[in-house]
Amino acid sequence: MKKLVQSVFLDSDEAIQLWKTFRKDLKTPAGTLLSHTVQDMISGVDSAIRAGIQIPGSGPGGGAEHERHKTNGNIAFDAARLWLMNGNPQYAQYVLDLLLAYAKIYAGLPFAVPYSKNPPGRLFHQIMNEHMWLLSTSAAWSAIRHLASDADRRAVETGLFEPLVQMFTVTYAHRFDILHNHGMWASASVGICGIACKREDWVQLALVGQHGDSQTAGFLAQLSTLFSISGYYKEGPYYQRFAIQPMLLFAEAYDRYNPAFKIYDFHHGVIKKGFYSALQASFPDGRLLPLDDCMKTTSITNVGYVMGTSLVYKHFGHDMVLLSLAKLHGKVWPDAGGVLVSKAVASTPQLTLPVLKDSVELSCGPEGNRGAVGILRHGHSARDMTMVTLDYAEHGIPGHCHFDSLVLGYYNRGREVLREYGSVRWINVEPKKGGSYLKENTSFAKQTIAHNTMVVDQTSQFFGDDALAVGSFGRRLRFDASNKSRQLISAELDGYNPGVVLRRTVALVSLDEYKEPLLIDVFSCQSATEHSYDYVTYYNGQVIRTNLEYETPANRAPLGSKHGYQHLWLCGTAQVQKPGLLTWLDAPGYQTCLFDCSVDSELLFVRTGASDPQFNLREEPAFILRFNGKSGMLAAVHESHGFFNEEIERSEGARGTLTQLEIIHSNQELMVLALSAGEQVYLVALATAVPREHDAHEFEYGGTTWNFEGSIFIKKL
Amino acid sequence: MKKLVQSVFLDSDEAIQLWKTFRKDLKTPAGTLLSHTVQDMISGVDSAIRAGIQIPGSGPGGGAEHERHKTNGNIAFDAARLWLMNGNPQYAQYVLDLLLAYAKIYAGLPFAVPYSKNPPGRLFHQIMNEHMWLLSTSAAWSAIRHLASDADRRAVETGLFEPLVQMFTVTYAHRFDILHNHGMWASASVGICGIACKREDWVQLALVGQHGDSQTAGFLAQLSTLFSISGYYKEGPYYQRFAIQPMLLFAEAYDRYNPAFKIYDFHHGVIKKGFYSALQASFPDGRLLPLDDCMKTTSITNVGYVMGTSLVYKHFGHDMVLLSLAKLHGKVWPDAGGVLVSKAVASTPQLTLPVLKDSVELSCGPEGNRGAVGILRHGHSARDMTMVTLDYAEHGIPGHCHFDSLVLGYYNRGREVLREYGSVRWINVEPKKGGSYLKENTSFAKQTIAHNTMVVDQTSQFFGDDALAVGSFGRRLRFDASNKSRQLISAELDGYNPGVVLRRTVALVSLDEYKEPLLIDVFSCQSATEHSYDYVTYYNGQVIRTNLEYETPANRAPLGSKHGYQHLWLCGTAQVQKPGLLTWLDAPGYQTCLFDCSVDSELLFVRTGASDPQFNLREEPAFILRFNGKSGMLAAVHESHGFFNEEIERSEGARGTLTQLEIIHSNQELMVLALSAGEQVYLVALATAVPREHDAHEFEYGGTTWNFEGSIFIKKL
Repeated sequence: MKKLVQSVFLDSDEAIQLWKTFRKDLKTPAGTLLSHTVQDMISGVDSAIRAGIQIPGSGPGGGAEHERHKTNGNIAFDAARLWLMNGNPQYAQYVLDLLLAYAKIYAGLPFAVPYSKNPPGRLFHQIMNEHMWLLSTSAAWSAIRHLASDADRRAVETGLFEPLVQMFTVTYAHRFDILHNHGMWASASVGICGIACKREDWVQLALVGQHGDSQTAGFLAQLSTLFSISGYYKEGPYYQRFAIQPMLLFAEAYDRYNPAFKIYDFHHGVIKKGFYSALQASFPDGRLLPLDDCMKTTSITNVGYVMGTSLVYKHFGHDMVLLSLAKLHGKVWPDAGGVLVSKAVASTPQLTLPVLKDSVELSCGPEGNRGAVGILRHGHSARDMTMVTLDYAEHGIPGHCHFDSLVLGYYNRGREVLREYGSVRWINVEPKKGGSYLKENTSFAKQTIAHNTMVVDQTSQFFGDDALAVGSFGRRLRFDASNKSRQLISAELDGYNPGVVLRRTVALVSLDEYKEPLLIDVFSCQSATEHSYDYVTYYNGQVIRTNLEYETPANRAPLGSKHGYQHLWLCGTAQVQKPGLLTWLDAPGYQTCLFDCSVDSELLFVRTGASDPQFNLREEPAFILRFNGKSGMLAAVHESHGFFNEEIERSEGARGTLTQLEIIHSNQELMVLALSAGEQVYLVALATAVPREHDAHEFEYGGTTWNFEGSIFIKKL
Repeated sequence: MKKLVQSVFLDSDEAIQLWKTFRKDLKTPAGTLLSHTVQDMISGVDSAIRAGIQIPGSGPGGGAEHERHKTNGNIAFDAARLWLMNGNPQYAQYVLDLLLAYAKIYAGLPFAVPYSKNPPGRLFHQIMNEHMWLLSTSAAWSAIRHLASDADRRAVETGLFEPLVQMFTVTYAHRFDILHNHGMWASASVGICGIACKREDWVQLALVGQHGDSQTAGFLAQLSTLFSISGYYKEGPYYQRFAIQPMLLFAEAYDRYNPAFKIYDFHHGVIKKGFYSALQASFPDGRLLPLDDCMKTTSITNVGYVMGTSLVYKHFGHDMVLLSLAKLHGKVWPDAGGVLVSKAVASTPQLTLPVLKDSVELSCGPEGNRGAVGILRHGHSARDMTMVTLDYAEHGIPGHCHFDSLVLGYYNRGREVLREYGSVRWINVEPKKGGSYLKENTSFAKQTIAHNTMVVDQTSQFFGDDALAVGSFGRRLRFDASNKSRQLISAELDGYNPGVVLRRTVALVSLDEYKEPLLIDVFSCQSATEHSYDYVTYYNGQVIRTNLEYETPANRAPLGSKHGYQHLWLCGTAQVQKPGLLTWLDAPGYQTCLFDCSVDSELLFVRTGASDPQFNLREEPAFILRFNGKSGMLAAVHESHGFFNEEIERSEGARGTLTQLEIIHSNQELMVLALSAGEQVYLVALATAVPREHDAHEFEYGGTTWNFEGSIFIKKL
């Protein structure tokens, strides 16, 4: 009988069972998720072994050296797990040889050239990557350590892992003591290395931090501080998909090491919540919501979701969404959970893409009362899903947060209709500052004007100053998804701009005459003093129709000089007729926005790309509705309509159904609109304030007193 | 036994046979191309019958009325063919009712509102659509005419078809007497209507034109005039895919009507050649080459290719490319040819996408000596195909031709690397001038600066005047595709700009060190007087690296005031170091252009979209290399390299391999370049002139005399 090896992520008996299942699955005609996973591991490791060990110096993100070290770490981890599965000594030997080769040179390597504020490691331009590398290689080590001679063991641990842990916890102690995704990686990697090397001191350090308080640093502090009670993550969805990797990896490793601790129960089950909330924060096509710093194409196919699918399924049981997710991934995490998921997927033939149908509020703060990201969903399949998001979340730890509170997201017919810019970064594109954030990320992408929200006095929220913004959050007034055909969110910012209260209410409404739900967006801006208000809408596609008389300048100049305005070209101006109407073509359909404002307003056509001396920005269109005054009300309705396919030269319904929008009544509790399509008029009333005990409302219109209860009133006149 | 009905496109016995095959094919699990075709016909017709006959007034392209009439015509044609197939009287009745309904009102309808220079019909905003409609409805009539009572027959023919033919041949006689795709549709529709109504006079009129000479008008004149000996079409590929529809339809109808004429043999088999040349004029992804007026997404999935696949297969026999094409279409043309193709596809399991591998010259003129479109292809599958095109074709009939001679096309790794703008037109987008060409099509898209070629004195070729340009063509100097790893085209323009001779030589070269073939592009500009030369390159994507010091203006102004320059924003300027290097990211890869010029040059970064008061243009980037002098030589090398996928955050090889390019020798016969990648230098010589009897060349370099035969010499130094 084989000796039981308890590696960090896989026990030897579990591994042997996994290998047996793999061999059996290989015989099925199409294979299984498990067989594809293991086959990929084998082919990657075999090809690395054939190529021989290669250890270059350091280089920028996206450079050959960077990718080589990354690959070496991942291959070591895979080779170690394969060794546990099939006992092929070649795999164990490869891991040992690789670690010895690194150990021989590591301490003598110079520090890399840094490309960002993150300090450099010896292999990578930022230690964050070196954390990830330590995690993979020490995990590999845990499987083969018992095979190594004493001398080799000393060589690897004193030559490689000790200097790494030393660097992370002493040299860069200030980067270990941060509550941040980097801190999460730092603690997870040191903890896993501790388990691998049987250094309980490192494990404890990783768990409870240098001060031993589980508050200022360490894995437990990361969990309880960075994730809210709903599982929402302080640095936004893009970093959440990244942070769930170390979260899941160290949780799983520690659970195997010290099951009595019950880490999966820690902090009200934050690990499960953190995973599901990362899933919720995605569009129907799987791309993550572009809140705060993000790359726009990052999706739920990311490796953290692969880990989470298997681990969460194993620990928390059956869930069809997880099986759909696994099918989308085409692979599993290779442990007992992956075996379970693979079997379940194989016996569930009708799995479609994962579809989240619920409207949810991803609330912030330990009690869930520090703002939220409100998500409204409407539809049954990924194909017909409409999604509306309103962000009134807490401004998180300085760094990746944008000054974008009350930003509206709108996804319909497979497209992000209201486009968020995302980050100014060409990730891993080495000639672009090593793939790091570019200076326009601060000067443009983080500024309020870069987002689909309201800008006051052409100045960002909190003047774009993290120190002023940190900890602030929007006030949720109303979140009502009780009726899927009439959903509403209302939220308010007070003091994000001095002396100004901004209230935004968005409703997703299905009406009989419209194939797609309508998005109604109303903004109330209140102040005792004069201000300029800019309502911003980034769109995709080509303007094809407007009822406004507009002028385009012969030359283009930047719209302003600061707070991101310097990066917008002014491309056209119009005095707004009431109501304003703008239709753009965004194949495969058309999009019309009708807008009405309680005061005179001006429409500015703009494009990103000004003041961009290094061509760092994408050049994309937006329009701004600008009005001045102490206070003002603005209403906009978005209609998705028609069809366009250039290849088959077919266009239908290029003009939408809506023809008129009028604000007919507004106060601090209600916004009443008349929405017309030719002769057909809908009276729409939205409750915008916190519901009282009896959520009843009343207003006058056309000589009649109208009453309703709840959040939305719709009456065909 | 059923009476034989000889309808225009389908005989009743052939139809019954087709129906039998369809019924049998239905029983196969996945169906066949034929069964899918007939099922689609049935479902379209049944749903139209259920909806009842609807005849609206007229409206703009893309409007509901326009689409309704189009659909009515197509459904009538399908219903008539289905009646022939299965004898269901409901189908025949529907056709009769529809035609009677149109006949009742047609002559009394007012003319439609025109949106272009094409005169309006009564159903459509331009008679061209009415030609198409006549073709479909009279084809339908041919199948059921014998069922109609005398009174109904008179009603349909005197109330509908006679006024239509009268309008096309008398009222708009000047549009019948044109050699143009509209003339092709006019003659084909009148001819088919003549066959259907047994009006031999109309058939003859359609065939030989109003003057009976087969030269000035009529179908035969269209065939012999618009198509060259190679099958290339005078209005470019986009109109070719359109013109092959009436070409094939009337040819087939006439062949069934008068087989003794042997129309498929007419003019050296121009019908077959016209179809295959339309196929050749496509990129590996199936999109048509964007030469002259075109929509960029039009592809070989267009209906003309569906017709042609079945008809050409039937008349000219087996061809694997046709079967691949049919599989791509997923349907066939419902006649005996379609049955053959469907059967052949069903018994050929390994069909991939249609792949054209040959390098060809699509020559112009009846003798093929009036210029050409040269096409170089390299690769084995659609996925790895590289394609280079050089256009030195004859300037065709005024209208859709662009002033774009010597334009270079370059397609690699699934992308059009050097982007052509195409037409300024939002086809069928009704609010955009009814989907017609917009004024920027003339002021920008047709101008030389809108293309990847050389502009002299910031003025279009022939001053952008069709009258001056018509009939002119480039001189082919050399077309050598004998060695797939070293292919070359060289061509020359004389007098397109007064006193200037432009010679462009492009070579597609495979070198061991490069995964993708290199595109080498050399331009020689010769004149006795001073000129300004602008070498234009439209690219896709984001600039990520250059060795040039450049400046970007704080404000953007148009680059010029006429010949299309007014539509380009000046976005940056650089004095060119030798050699210049520019890398842009065009996911999934990178593209680097290295360039050297014999005289000092300046690089201008530009974007389309200036002087565009109605937002008709797409805003897209280009760069211009500008130099002044009597004469000058310019060499550029394009390297496709690396890999980028933002979703998986992976980038490789963002810097290309090439580092240096130097023109080391040039004369009227040779261009010799040194091409370096670090220490590695390739000596490359291109023969640019017409080959002499012994195609031998000699040059001096580095104290050595080098000799070679043929078009390309490459030596690793």
